[in-house]
Amino acid sequence: MRDAGGIGRPGPVRRPRAVDVAARAGVSVATVSFVVNGKAEGRVSPATRLRVLDAIAALGYVTDASARALATGRRRQVALLAHDMTNPFTAQVAAGAATGIAEATDGTGHLLLLLAAGLDEPDVEPVGAATVDGVLINYPGTLPAGRPDLPVVHLDDPAAGGHQVSLDVAVGARELARHLADLGHRHVVHLDSNRPWSTFAERRAAFADEFARLVPGAVVTDDRCDIDLAAARDHAAQRAEGWRRSGATAVVAATDVQALGVLAGLHGAGVAVPGQLSVAGFDDIPFAEVSAPPLTTVALPARELGHRGAVLLAQVIEDPAAPPGEPVVLPAHLVVRGSTGPATDLIR
Amino acid sequence: MRDAGGIGRPGPVRRPRAVDVAARAGVSVATVSFVVNGKAEGRVSPATRLRVLDAIAALGYVTDASARALATGRRRQVALLAHDMTNPFTAQVAAGAATGIAEATDGTGHLLLLLAAGLDEPDVEPVGAATVDGVLINYPGTLPAGRPDLPVVHLDDPAAGGHQVSLDVAVGARELARHLADLGHRHVVHLDSNRPWSTFAERRAAFADEFARLVPGAVVTDDRCDIDLAAARDHAAQRAEGWRRSGATAVVAATDVQALGVLAGLHGAGVAVPGQLSVAGFDDIPFAEVSAPPLTTVALPARELGHRGAVLLAQVIEDPAAPPGEPVVLPAHLVVRGSTGPATDLIR
Repeated sequence: MRDAGGIGRPGPVRRPRAVDVAARAGVSVATVSFVVNGKAEGRVSPATRLRVLDAIAALGYVTDASARALATGRRRQVALLAHDMTNPFTAQVAAGAATGIAEATDGTGHLLLLLAAGLDEPDVEPVGAATVDGVLINYPGTLPAGRPDLPVVHLDDPAAGGHQVSLDVAVGARELARHLADLGHRHVVHLDSNRPWSTFAERRAAFADEFARLVPGAVVTDDRCDIDLAAARDHAAQRAEGWRRSGATAVVAATDVQALGVLAGLHGAGVAVPGQLSVAGFDDIPFAEVSAPPLTTVALPARELGHRGAVLLAQVIEDPAAPPGEPVVLPAHLVVRGSTGPATDLIR
Repeated sequence: MRDAGGIGRPGPVRRPRAVDVAARAGVSVATVSFVVNGKAEGRVSPATRLRVLDAIAALGYVTDASARALATGRRRQVALLAHDMTNPFTAQVAAGAATGIAEATDGTGHLLLLLAAGLDEPDVEPVGAATVDGVLINYPGTLPAGRPDLPVVHLDDPAAGGHQVSLDVAVGARELARHLADLGHRHVVHLDSNRPWSTFAERRAAFADEFARLVPGAVVTDDRCDIDLAAARDHAAQRAEGWRRSGATAVVAATDVQALGVLAGLHGAGVAVPGQLSVAGFDDIPFAEVSAPPLTTVALPARELGHRGAVLLAQVIEDPAAPPGEPVVLPAHLVVRGSTGPATDLIR
């Protein structure tokens, strides 16, 4: 460790070391190590831990994480690449991943937030520059540049291959198809996202196949809009009349954010839900329960997706050469609320 | 830089250095530096940049960020301490902070996600262990342990002192008081959060003072619940009858998440909004626009709060000795939607 890389200004040097902290606190270097690495629980008394933390503060011993990263090649930090953290589904994935990485690293690990809202591609160059040990990808199709060997776990991207945690969206989509068939619907608008991601393709295919199997002469009309509340609201307000004239009696959106936007747009256009059009989504974000009317939706376990993904990523980081096991697939199920009802052609 | 700290296993050493990357790519070390530090734009051609990235990948040159941190004492990483990232307000703050820190560091900086949902205190020990250059605190009252000199910017915590970006919640609260007074309300339930944070105290005080000033014999009844959709829904369902019997004609919640929960709870209890009770909140999260009915609320610029906070934090990190300037205070304003209407005692 004679040379640390050469880029950047040379520092003032002679930083305080663990032995300095140990000497000041009157403890062993091992004790300092336990405290610094989050392993104090059950090993170091609270009073001693406080003394070590005081010594750390007094000496300005601040670069241990960097030093450890150089020594071990580990940053104890992973990134989540995501499309839009303000989508409640993504926020739940992030919250789950944060607890998962903390759990897998005994509380010493962190989750980096790499957003890509509104961009064609997220800025993954920082990941290529090695600030992380691995990446959770909830932004299908994106791979960090420059580090082909970086441990990666794909979330909700069944086409990705490799290490992945997925959702059984097809099961949920088929339940939704049966629910709408039972209510007498024969013509459904499928409002997809504008993202060519495999999870959305799977939702659409499973729904349409099951619906066609159950309903003679079934029609599924394809439409699409951004995964954005206002975009979906405006889209629905503009299309509402056309959807109804075409004979559609229900709208199935690829995500709850779109479905809630559709509810707002239909309300603005004077279309009654579910009286004139039924509406359903995927995700079961918390706000799906308090919309007007409450939203029928396929519940997807976002928090568990993030949590399981982070725990799996920690394993991949430990043993990068191990081949991917069977993909973890988390269950999905339909939640029926007030936004779906009998098809209008049956009740008029 | 002869010794990097001493904690952790000694590594296999002889890591590839920037000069190795430069040699392999056939460029200067300065060029490697530009690419690695995100300064390639306008300085390094795309083809050369690709060659450098290829060389980085081929050599496994992965610890530059750690090396740079040791050399400069900078991690180019800040943390956001937050209560609950799944609250859309917090998610917007995080999204704004991520863009702010990227902007302030020319795209090389990151935002760390430190969650504290459901805990009495967030786990700030990792921050004490120096993985970051500074902290954005959106969890009032919490300070990272062990590093009294760590640069900190407080978000929406007017009582914190120091460097801060705040929201003019009092102006918005007074607008809301005038709006309800104009509608003939005299008795309002103020549904606070269970958190003893200064921003909530300020919202309540400004509302109650202005309401008392405008309405002779005004009554403001204090109530509280967790900042959680389901908790607020259950609370409102249980209290609805009591609120009405007490003569209250409106409920003002400290946050939109609570206000939306109240709407759901009142709906379940058969109380018409705004016919029997008006409801209003603070934040103007996107879902406030699509609730039933759409929510009257004090709009707070969450994304700008995070963005401005991150930019200010970058300045504090650059010049930690500079005294705090005047606090940045971002404007708030009332957005009137369908959840507020004339007081019931005037219309029956």
